[in-house]
Amino acid sequence: MNEKVLRIGVVGAGTVGAGVIEILMTRAALLERRSGVRLALAKVADIDAAKARAAGAPAEIIAADGMAVAGAPDIDIFVELIGGTDAAERMVRLALQSGKPVVTANKALLAEKGRPLFALAREKGVPLAFEAAVCGGIPIILALREGLIANRISSLLGIVNGTCNFILTRMAEKISYNAALREAQQQGYAEVDPRLDVDGIDSGHKLALLSAIAFDTWPDFNLLPLEGISRLDVMDVDFANYLEYTVKLLAVARTDPDNRRLFLSVHPSLLRHQHPLAGVHGSMNAVVLEGDVAKEAMFYGRGAGRYPTASAVVSDIVAVARALQSGERAWIWTPEEKPTYAIGNMADYRSRYYLRFIVEDRPGVLGRITTAMGDHEVSIASVHQFESELKDNQVPVTVLTHMAREGDVRAALQAIAHLAFMRAEPVMLRIEG
Amino acid sequence: MNEKVLRIGVVGAGTVGAGVIEILMTRAALLERRSGVRLALAKVADIDAAKARAAGAPAEIIAADGMAVAGAPDIDIFVELIGGTDAAERMVRLALQSGKPVVTANKALLAEKGRPLFALAREKGVPLAFEAAVCGGIPIILALREGLIANRISSLLGIVNGTCNFILTRMAEKISYNAALREAQQQGYAEVDPRLDVDGIDSGHKLALLSAIAFDTWPDFNLLPLEGISRLDVMDVDFANYLEYTVKLLAVARTDPDNRRLFLSVHPSLLRHQHPLAGVHGSMNAVVLEGDVAKEAMFYGRGAGRYPTASAVVSDIVAVARALQSGERAWIWTPEEKPTYAIGNMADYRSRYYLRFIVEDRPGVLGRITTAMGDHEVSIASVHQFESELKDNQVPVTVLTHMAREGDVRAALQAIAHLAFMRAEPVMLRIEG
Repeated sequence: MNEKVLRIGVVGAGTVGAGVIEILMTRAALLERRSGVRLALAKVADIDAAKARAAGAPAEIIAADGMAVAGAPDIDIFVELIGGTDAAERMVRLALQSGKPVVTANKALLAEKGRPLFALAREKGVPLAFEAAVCGGIPIILALREGLIANRISSLLGIVNGTCNFILTRMAEKISYNAALREAQQQGYAEVDPRLDVDGIDSGHKLALLSAIAFDTWPDFNLLPLEGISRLDVMDVDFANYLEYTVKLLAVARTDPDNRRLFLSVHPSLLRHQHPLAGVHGSMNAVVLEGDVAKEAMFYGRGAGRYPTASAVVSDIVAVARALQSGERAWIWTPEEKPTYAIGNMADYRSRYYLRFIVEDRPGVLGRITTAMGDHEVSIASVHQFESELKDNQVPVTVLTHMAREGDVRAALQAIAHLAFMRAEPVMLRIEG
Repeated sequence: MNEKVLRIGVVGAGTVGAGVIEILMTRAALLERRSGVRLALAKVADIDAAKARAAGAPAEIIAADGMAVAGAPDIDIFVELIGGTDAAERMVRLALQSGKPVVTANKALLAEKGRPLFALAREKGVPLAFEAAVCGGIPIILALREGLIANRISSLLGIVNGTCNFILTRMAEKISYNAALREAQQQGYAEVDPRLDVDGIDSGHKLALLSAIAFDTWPDFNLLPLEGISRLDVMDVDFANYLEYTVKLLAVARTDPDNRRLFLSVHPSLLRHQHPLAGVHGSMNAVVLEGDVAKEAMFYGRGAGRYPTASAVVSDIVAVARALQSGERAWIWTPEEKPTYAIGNMADYRSRYYLRFIVEDRPGVLGRITTAMGDHEVSIASVHQFESELKDNQVPVTVLTHMAREGDVRAALQAIAHLAFMRAEPVMLRIEG
């Protein structure tokens, strides 16, 4: 092959950036042999130049700042790995404006401010690639966009945040949320400020991008119903386990084909122990989906970390490089102007539910709860009153419902919450599989 | 988009062909919207023309025979779905000779006679695509070739034959091999002549293709050590379960990086109950692999059936169509001239092993067995003598070894097989995870 060398500019030499720099510097020959494209790491910038040097970038390619790389005329592909939304947005915009394809791992940027960036990419005729933004080492964007291209996807459930899954795996071993979080922080799975992860925001970013790709429907990120695990009580993980369910933080997208609605949410959810996602432990990620021709499929792997994420970034760089060399434009993905689905209101969602009450231990309580459920058209599959370790004559009661409308379940809970024997806010978790 | 319409010729209107015909006839608009390519089903042939009509192909596009489609000047992409190796080879060769890209689901053809066909494709500058040949609905070829392009793969374990996995799932429920096979035949999971599946040949075809893609090493199919499940005794599935292992028919590829050797085999194997592949039940397929940057990953889904396989065929048609429109040649995959690895002799394979003996129940027997193992440098992890339901004072004994060289294990077994108290051929299964 005597194609021209494509010059890569990388901004951000942190965890992922250093991995990308290392792979580009050590595997150019392997990548050329496998793909026919010739890549050269041509510029690296980091707000901390020492980091760029520590990542192994030769001094002569270290640029003054990211904007200089984004605008440089001698860069063919711009790789944004600084994270955050403000500076990253300026750089990505400048790179696209100057006609450069962009590869990014920045889920927050794309989920919150992506639409105009994709529109700009389309206008300029260059790709904006983001495999690394969703589930790091798992090629899920590629699978959805190409491998499953003939499918209409009807549902997608994902464990897309390794921090939460690590914490939940420990909680399943009866460790409290706070203790599990501290452990995750000590082992480097959670940030000092863990809110982006444990409040479900990071999962929400990935859900928004998966929705755009799998369902041709770009949701308004600010309207997504996101609930994390920070309010989850280990008691519920324990009761779920007794009932033969595992609790996972799931990003969920399900269609209601009759009404052309798509329900999107992030929520701690119950899955039967036998469900493929119930066996996803520790910091691993996995996505289960249902396509109308390929049927069920699961993709599992490392969702984060230097090398798994770098693996995805480099796969995008190669794909973009191939598109550049061939001049292929069909490759460029932009969200549909007219989304395929309307976003459904979760009140209209239909699911089974796990409900947990802390009640005063006196006669008639179960009857009052179950009557209130019936009054709201919520049919009960099982009721368990557990032996209590609580003080003051309080006992926990769990209810598993049959399929019900979420609005009805919430109305029943509201009615029950006001009853005199209630000793705590009721807990509601969805049973997703 | 006003690109030209690409004309697709499909030969074979059986299970998979009918699915492809249906998708091409009903989803051209969806595929165009998602990929920018315009596809038209232009010719269909089947040795039984009634099948082509039954599949919904309009009478005016039904061709006299497959060779006429393969050689037709007004076909842009040739899709071979007749299976078998002889007629299929002639058609694929003619199509490539006449400069047509080919899409096939034919694992036997490619594994046994693929090298010269790929060489011809390269010579003619056209792709020969085969996503559907390995694990139907799972886009594993795409994942390996593109998503994981930056990785060196060190190991790959696959459940790649749904028939065998269905039978083994039933055997885990204490059904005999013969009864489980009959059930598989009744339910349409096994052919009347099941040998291609149960003797491991189909798994071997897929292993050969996975090896070529994941390890840049094309093995001689005739030299692959293939063992199926037809000689497997339900007793061993049962003992394995007692020892907390599941028996699966695995296609295995493992590298020995020091010696640049690749070990390839198909073999009934033990996996710990917690292993991700141990939870793959019924006719499902899955592949677990380890890449040096993406780390561990698993891909799971339907490996066969009309629509899952058709989903893969259509994804290849779209990818080939995009390559045709853009003139991209880098896309064309051909096996490496110089394989990355030499194929290792299984005598040099290192693994843990499950061994099972039927012995006469008398003092000193366990000592003789374990001594013979020690004499051959095979170290023992556990020994179990099971309560016997066998007649004539016979008892089953299982031995799990530590890591050992397979040649040593076989030598020990040979020595043991000649001892006077042995009542049956010893059984050896690998413990792969």
